[in-house]
Amino acid sequence: MISKAQIKSIRALQQKKHRYEQGCFVVEGEKLVLELLSLHGGRGVQCLKLVMTEDFAQAHENLWSRCESVWLATAEQLAQMGQLQSNRGALAVVAMPKPDPLICQPDNWTLVLDCINDPGNLGTILRVADWFGIEQVVCSANTVDVFNPKVVAAAKGSLLRVMPHVRDLPELLSQWQGQLPILGAVLDGESVHDLPVLQGGVLVMGNESHGISSAVAALIDRPVTIPSYGGGAESLNVAMATGILCDNLRRLSCSAK
Amino acid sequence: MISKAQIKSIRALQQKKHRYEQGCFVVEGEKLVLELLSLHGGRGVQCLKLVMTEDFAQAHENLWSRCESVWLATAEQLAQMGQLQSNRGALAVVAMPKPDPLICQPDNWTLVLDCINDPGNLGTILRVADWFGIEQVVCSANTVDVFNPKVVAAAKGSLLRVMPHVRDLPELLSQWQGQLPILGAVLDGESVHDLPVLQGGVLVMGNESHGISSAVAALIDRPVTIPSYGGGAESLNVAMATGILCDNLRRLSCSAK
Repeated sequence: MISKAQIKSIRALQQKKHRYEQGCFVVEGEKLVLELLSLHGGRGVQCLKLVMTEDFAQAHENLWSRCESVWLATAEQLAQMGQLQSNRGALAVVAMPKPDPLICQPDNWTLVLDCINDPGNLGTILRVADWFGIEQVVCSANTVDVFNPKVVAAAKGSLLRVMPHVRDLPELLSQWQGQLPILGAVLDGESVHDLPVLQGGVLVMGNESHGISSAVAALIDRPVTIPSYGGGAESLNVAMATGILCDNLRRLSCSAK
Repeated sequence: MISKAQIKSIRALQQKKHRYEQGCFVVEGEKLVLELLSLHGGRGVQCLKLVMTEDFAQAHENLWSRCESVWLATAEQLAQMGQLQSNRGALAVVAMPKPDPLICQPDNWTLVLDCINDPGNLGTILRVADWFGIEQVVCSANTVDVFNPKVVAAAKGSLLRVMPHVRDLPELLSQWQGQLPILGAVLDGESVHDLPVLQGGVLVMGNESHGISSAVAALIDRPVTIPSYGGGAESLNVAMATGILCDNLRRLSCSAK
């Protein structure tokens, strides 16, 4: 059984400071841990510690026998270590994966997130990027930490496939400017339904309340908008807007092929 | 100041049974209450009781002076009555509005929700419907109650504009079949990007885990799918899928005009 000191050290990973000091983060819940273990080694996902209930251990022996550091714990102890209210399965401590090198790719889409604050929104956006095959996601340094437990929970397995970069956005976008179209989601831009065929480029999404920051907005060469038809709702949630825009961009880039 | 008995009677409206016995529900928080009061009378929204802090009362006298039954309360009392953790503004008890008559409209879209369980999803779907000007939303009887406080919070002001009907879906759809196209969101249908121009019809969205029920699925004549490009994410959240599909349907019905 797991010790109190070990519980405490895993619980500390709820805080960003401890995650970056130790270079690891927590994945919780039976479904997500199983998805992680089935990828183990395949994509550079390294499981440092696995903590699980006896039931989980018995049901999935073929999976966890590959992990080196394994403990049993009760469901109560699992809940103490993480942020799930109830966890009858398992919890894994995972080394922070290194994203693939960031490249300027004019034939695919790169999603750029300028100060997304809400962890649920960031997680949902990663899931959307994964669905639409957008492998490059870049966050500003003031976007919520991608290893925040609520981001991990909302992203589901997508975090293990779409690994965001953190960059200075004005610096990055000024390097890329002229090499690919830089689109940005705004409330008064060109309708995304009227865009020409585009093979790829950058889509910038801004903060939940304040939109795209002025330094980044200055580098956008194509402001785009999701047309509304009601005149009622004043805005769409940023994750919803990202999903709708990515669907449109995929429709356009596919018709280019 | 409000009495303990009044606090208790408003708190009871957190439960569906009491809401339907009394024919009213709760709207919480400064922003939403202000939106409601500015509509008061305009669309049949009837504010039965208004409970507010002194600060709110002083700042918005021109608005609340139209309400007949008004109380002052502390922020702590407002939090006791509702589901917000903190509410320094106001709370309104509102008569359940009657939706406009439900009609078979082949030149606009009607959204049909088959057992949506999560109140956050239903609220988000109503906000999306409002954005895309879809005024008719029909819920199955086993969809979460639209006056659930979490639905009201997630829908924001859209609930006051998009008022869902509750109907037996197989009965309704069999009446409408043949008069308009009945689309349903599934995982293996026709790509929504390949749909022909359609002026309107019905879009059915199913349950978060089980999709569309078999009795409803039998009445769908056009199963549609949002194409994925990653091969990674196994599904999109139902509210996200509704937003993406509505955007596509609007694009198609506008190009029909």
